Amino acid sequence: MSETDLPETDVDSAQLDEDDRLKPEFVRSVLDAVEDGDAEAARALVEPLHPADIADLFELTPHELRAALATALENLLDGEVFAEMNDYVREDLIDALSATQVADIASELDTDDAVAIIEDMEPADQREVLRALDPDDRAAIEEALRYPEESAGRLMQRELIAVPEHWSVGDVMDYLRGHEELTTDFWEIFVVDPAHKPVGTVALSWILRTPHGIAISDVMQREQTLIPVDMDQEEVALRFQKYALISAAVVDPAGRLVGMITVDDVVHIISEEAGEDILRLSGAGDGDINEPIHLTVRTRITWLVVNLGTAMLAASVVGLFQGEIGRFALLAVLMPIVSGMGSNAGTQTLAVMVRAIATNQLTSSNTGRMIYREFRIAAANGAMLGALIGIGTLLIFGNVNLAIVIAMAMVINNLIAGLSGVLIPVTLDRLDVDPAVSSAVFVTMMTDVMGFFSFLGLATLFGLGG
Amino acid sequence: MSETDLPETDVDSAQLDEDDRLKPEFVRSVLDAVEDGDAEAARALVEPLHPADIADLFELTPHELRAALATALENLLDGEVFAEMNDYVREDLIDALSATQVADIASELDTDDAVAIIEDMEPADQREVLRALDPDDRAAIEEALRYPEESAGRLMQRELIAVPEHWSVGDVMDYLRGHEELTTDFWEIFVVDPAHKPVGTVALSWILRTPHGIAISDVMQREQTLIPVDMDQEEVALRFQKYALISAAVVDPAGRLVGMITVDDVVHIISEEAGEDILRLSGAGDGDINEPIHLTVRTRITWLVVNLGTAMLAASVVGLFQGEIGRFALLAVLMPIVSGMGSNAGTQTLAVMVRAIATNQLTSSNTGRMIYREFRIAAANGAMLGALIGIGTLLIFGNVNLAIVIAMAMVINNLIAGLSGVLIPVTLDRLDVDPAVSSAVFVTMMTDVMGFFSFLGLATLFGLGG
Repeated sequence: MSETDLPETDVDSAQLDEDDRLKPEFVRSVLDAVEDGDAEAARALVEPLHPADIADLFELTPHELRAALATALENLLDGEVFAEMNDYVREDLIDALSATQVADIASELDTDDAVAIIEDMEPADQREVLRALDPDDRAAIEEALRYPEESAGRLMQRELIAVPEHWSVGDVMDYLRGHEELTTDFWEIFVVDPAHKPVGTVALSWILRTPHGIAISDVMQREQTLIPVDMDQEEVALRFQKYALISAAVVDPAGRLVGMITVDDVVHIISEEAGEDILRLSGAGDGDINEPIHLTVRTRITWLVVNLGTAMLAASVVGLFQGEIGRFALLAVLMPIVSGMGSNAGTQTLAVMVRAIATNQLTSSNTGRMIYREFRIAAANGAMLGALIGIGTLLIFGNVNLAIVIAMAMVINNLIAGLSGVLIPVTLDRLDVDPAVSSAVFVTMMTDVMGFFSFLGLATLFGLGG
Repeated sequence: MSETDLPETDVDSAQLDEDDRLKPEFVRSVLDAVEDGDAEAARALVEPLHPADIADLFELTPHELRAALATALENLLDGEVFAEMNDYVREDLIDALSATQVADIASELDTDDAVAIIEDMEPADQREVLRALDPDDRAAIEEALRYPEESAGRLMQRELIAVPEHWSVGDVMDYLRGHEELTTDFWEIFVVDPAHKPVGTVALSWILRTPHGIAISDVMQREQTLIPVDMDQEEVALRFQKYALISAAVVDPAGRLVGMITVDDVVHIISEEAGEDILRLSGAGDGDINEPIHLTVRTRITWLVVNLGTAMLAASVVGLFQGEIGRFALLAVLMPIVSGMGSNAGTQTLAVMVRAIATNQLTSSNTGRMIYREFRIAAANGAMLGALIGIGTLLIFGNVNLAIVIAMAMVINNLIAGLSGVLIPVTLDRLDVDPAVSSAVFVTMMTDVMGFFSFLGLATLFGLGG
């Protein structure tokens, strides 16, 4: 289905492709203008873009040209653009700016976005920027920085609307109209008691639909999800998802309202956290394509070296059977099939379990059921694959014992794959280790070692290569 | 850090653990009550739960007990609970209900949630439910069902607020107060021209903050993201994420406003789509733990059989060198290390690329840069791993030629892993094939085949096993 003749804003059709990505021609023409020193032309091209697209433009620009692009764009590169930018690309640019420039950018933003920009700076640079901020912004940001990284305290904005219980809808409306300095970035207001503890939430649509005289405590929703200020952002994201929240009150340990998290801040986290598993499971770390290359190499080589260890362990199992292989080299030809299939089956189970754990679907109520489920799946798949490879081996090599051995080894290794695919992540999760990070190594080790051992061991028992 | 002494609502502390999952003791006591036929006790336990938690309760309940639980809970099992429920679990329950009961549940919900419940039913059952609905609901749902599955048309709700350009803020407020039948589930209102084409959006906070006399066209935001009604939901989710949207207007091919999508509907999709990659890459299909087991077996065996094919191809490469292996069995011991390490390195690159493609970070502007980046990473990792395994081989086996061969094969296979890890997903994406679904098979095939070939081939060239 073509989307090209569907209505789009002007911006989309000129600079963005049908997938809403910047067109390569467009990126090239901006960078050409920058390289030619024609800052005005570059600005004219970029001006119609949304801040999120300007941020993308910086990400698509090679490292060497980013500073020149930033200089050319002048004030088009504002706080919004920085807030949307990939962390590494932002650091890259921030390094080139003075503390006062960074402070100017940060002061345009809500606390959460300002914190995101400042939190990754070197401590010395950070202090300098904080000194350049005006006292209110500075206090808010310093407070946020006291909370752990990736916690609700870093994510929340202090700009919110809180009203006392005894107000009427009309009072709330007068208050909102009468105070220019209040934020406009809110979707719900919070009702608080005299100790500033949240007692309820009112969606703006309810305020608009309710007569002025009604007490706010009569329209507010009393059941609400309160986010403790030190809650991990992944947990925050799961609550937003589960309860379909638009915004939520953040409370300190004493239960007082200290901030608000809105869904647009959480959406990025949901996507990141869900995408993280695939990267961690493969040992690719953050997997950020903008990460400096030496950091990427360091993360990946670490996992590869760990895998080298397990591969050598598996090889040493093969080494036990060198004599048999020397007498019957066909064993060496077929053994990678058994180990490889086990590793594939194990990865399937592992991927399912890692997702189920990450999305809170796997709890102690259903773990037993899931182990049994995966066992049955492994048995069914193992039986089918074993039959297939056994018949194939018989037809090709005409060796009944070899066919029986490879079929049996396939069944055994599938069961091992299925069981380790569930038990390893579940155990790691109980031990509070992220199963996405370390499970794959153990599962592959199990399926390699046991694949080789069951196939070559059975072959020896059956007198193959004897 | 302990969260237990932090403020939580009463519900949390009694039925939910610190990760916001239902406590196993709680689930057990509900199911015990159901099995004892004490429906009243079951209802009393479940009553304080949020609909999302009641939905979770059904997911955690074994298949055999779900119908009994549904009967016991009576009207606690309402449309909201169904809307939050896993698709398979919902189907399971819906099958047990009459068409009128389903229609009652659907009519409580916004179109998008009603469609989600009805779209997966058998055509005959679906028609019966539609007949049982009142004409307005029926027309809305039938219209939604005409759009492709997983499109914006299925996702949108028809209940929205649209006002003409010439109204003042006061007019809008009078309209909202004066019409009881309007939805309360909205965060922005849409301003439309006489042809019902959207011309702008106003966040409710702006309406509340603006004097009554001001024209709505003066406060509305003209730049808006319009969602074509046939846009794929993954694309919709990416736009919500990129532009931090709370709600967006859905337009038909003529550009008329036909519905609205709100961020809470998109949040589930973002998480699903991001989590899908890991499951697809491993060949685990949807990876839904509630899927009937025969469907799971079917999906997984399909991929395993494909992998069996590639494993046999790799084995046939080993078969070319049977003579050498027979004479020098150590080759068979070491060869899985080369292929296994290649497969690990390839999976790392692949995971990074699949995520970059899924999040629109990889475009034709930076593909060349990424290929070069992965090539350098592969060269660095290959050199380090090659040196490590070469030295290790020399120390353990004291065979210089064998050490040189395995080191060279390791470098070669890492380069192949890196290049196929980028080029295969990028190529598949250009061919409009989902790289997450099919890349892993090709990458593993490349690293297995080339790992065996480079190691055994070099060994032959160096006269090992000769």
